[in-house]
Amino acid sequence: MSPSPAASLAEIRRLVADLPGPDLATRTKAVARESTLTKPPGALGRLEALAEWMSTWQGKHPPQLRRPRIAVFAGNHGIAARGVSAYPPAVTGQMVRNFIAGGAAVNQICRSVDADLRVYEMSLETPTADFTIEPAMSDEECARAMAYGMMAVESGIDLLAVGEMGIANTTAGAALCHALFGGTPADWTGPGTGVAGDALQRKQAVVAAGVARHAAEAGGDGLEILRRLGGYELAAIAGAVIAARLARVPVLLDGYTATAAAATLTRLDPRLLDHCQVGHLSAEPAHARLCAQLGLRPLLDLGMRLGEGSGAALAVAILRAAVECHAGMATFGDAGVSGPA
Amino acid sequence: MSPSPAASLAEIRRLVADLPGPDLATRTKAVARESTLTKPPGALGRLEALAEWMSTWQGKHPPQLRRPRIAVFAGNHGIAARGVSAYPPAVTGQMVRNFIAGGAAVNQICRSVDADLRVYEMSLETPTADFTIEPAMSDEECARAMAYGMMAVESGIDLLAVGEMGIANTTAGAALCHALFGGTPADWTGPGTGVAGDALQRKQAVVAAGVARHAAEAGGDGLEILRRLGGYELAAIAGAVIAARLARVPVLLDGYTATAAAATLTRLDPRLLDHCQVGHLSAEPAHARLCAQLGLRPLLDLGMRLGEGSGAALAVAILRAAVECHAGMATFGDAGVSGPA
Repeated sequence: MSPSPAASLAEIRRLVADLPGPDLATRTKAVARESTLTKPPGALGRLEALAEWMSTWQGKHPPQLRRPRIAVFAGNHGIAARGVSAYPPAVTGQMVRNFIAGGAAVNQICRSVDADLRVYEMSLETPTADFTIEPAMSDEECARAMAYGMMAVESGIDLLAVGEMGIANTTAGAALCHALFGGTPADWTGPGTGVAGDALQRKQAVVAAGVARHAAEAGGDGLEILRRLGGYELAAIAGAVIAARLARVPVLLDGYTATAAAATLTRLDPRLLDHCQVGHLSAEPAHARLCAQLGLRPLLDLGMRLGEGSGAALAVAILRAAVECHAGMATFGDAGVSGPA
Repeated sequence: MSPSPAASLAEIRRLVADLPGPDLATRTKAVARESTLTKPPGALGRLEALAEWMSTWQGKHPPQLRRPRIAVFAGNHGIAARGVSAYPPAVTGQMVRNFIAGGAAVNQICRSVDADLRVYEMSLETPTADFTIEPAMSDEECARAMAYGMMAVESGIDLLAVGEMGIANTTAGAALCHALFGGTPADWTGPGTGVAGDALQRKQAVVAAGVARHAAEAGGDGLEILRRLGGYELAAIAGAVIAARLARVPVLLDGYTATAAAATLTRLDPRLLDHCQVGHLSAEPAHARLCAQLGLRPLLDLGMRLGEGSGAALAVAILRAAVECHAGMATFGDAGVSGPA
């Protein structure tokens, strides 16, 4: 698809009102083939379900995974000035240059899984507003950031993995989750890049202040919560998830912050993330809580907590194996292998 | 290494008496480099520990993973005649032909992770003896099978993943575990390819009978337990694990049966599996118990229970990402990225 730039959140809402659902005819084909393959029924575990899921959301049987794209969105946050991160805000831009030079973890992981990496820098010199005082973004800023994210879904890609880079954005992610799912600020606020003690208390206080400032006005509306408490890179992720659904491209979400950004969309449509999987369970403690809320079970659990798309990129290897097994295995009939005695 | 064919288990014992340990000087280099890379400390979770582990056991810094080999050993079992599997014994040979033709799950997974697959067929027309009556193998048969397994560790490979194919071999694996670690036959006996009800009861009874027949004579000796209750493909896996240690090649173990085969070696030396990781936690319930006994935490948990090296092969993708991140990432100094504020 090639999305028209959305000038307002109202246009985004119109887009979301008419999203394609699962392709059940294709799913039926995938389920039928799975049972003929040379293995005991169910012996490939989640790989079987993942192949069926890829087929269902690509609307294509057999599913394919030849052009996975990793999209990393980078943005800066007004709340960074409140000392919620272990790192200074300049690190966002420095890491973008590191991505472009090929020196970050996600570069190595993308190479190791043979996936294409694109980095989207979102006006790093102009952070969002401090959400403890005013909405992080105007309606138009949020809509434009979402439209920018939509552009990651270029024609020809068959999987999209989304990640983020943004000093202070686990604070924004925590605020989104607290606004969406309630609980306490502490439930959703973790160490991020490594804050503890007083800094962690400050981070919780910023989350609490943000939600107190905006919850009533946002009124449970996902896009308003995103606009008021999110950030450019988080809005872009939400936009990319919508565009992927429209283009029949399955999505891998990265860790806590990326999943939080996507979670705002479930307020528009509770099935809106059905074409998404979570690539990796972050060591950021609230990610498990968030995944449980969304009914999503991460594919990997390796103690990573880096963001920058690293966990989603690594999970491309799992999806590729699932697709290759489903598409490439011999059937009992073809291979002359006996079934159960 | 090019192992001389071992004619007796005594020769295997001599080999095991003088194995190389961890290369601690190399480990120190890996730990030092890890802390300079452009990410918050610890943010790559287990990938960091895996890169250090690869370096330590390869004796090489940076570690490398250019030539991973998946070795699948296939053998037949006398106890198959006792109705312990859902499939007839002919399936072992049929699946070997499927491996050679490229139609099995492990073929697709090896292609998807760009790993070399070798299949080792071990006198399928001559199953081991029925271990409820006599030892599965003679001393010489077991030693020859171990020596055969050693040949999988060819010069130039930098990782070995080991798996198995053999109708009835989860029964053999269960007998090995019950003899090694005690408990009840039910603790170690699961559905395998899908047995339940009466067939599962029969399987437990075969495990109980085998251990009752041999435990006293084996006297807790790992190689005697392997010889009496194992099988050709399981002895080959144990041999391959030893040869890999000698050649400084780290090892990925596949699921329950492969891990059980390797577990026999811990009776010769409790550190003998320190150069091994378990690739995937099998859905076969006893695998979790076995991994806990060995202090090994599987890298993946995707509900697979296929054997044939499939879980270990898939985990190659995780190790490759770990090695690539460690070797390829920029340092804070190189990339001009600021450290914590």
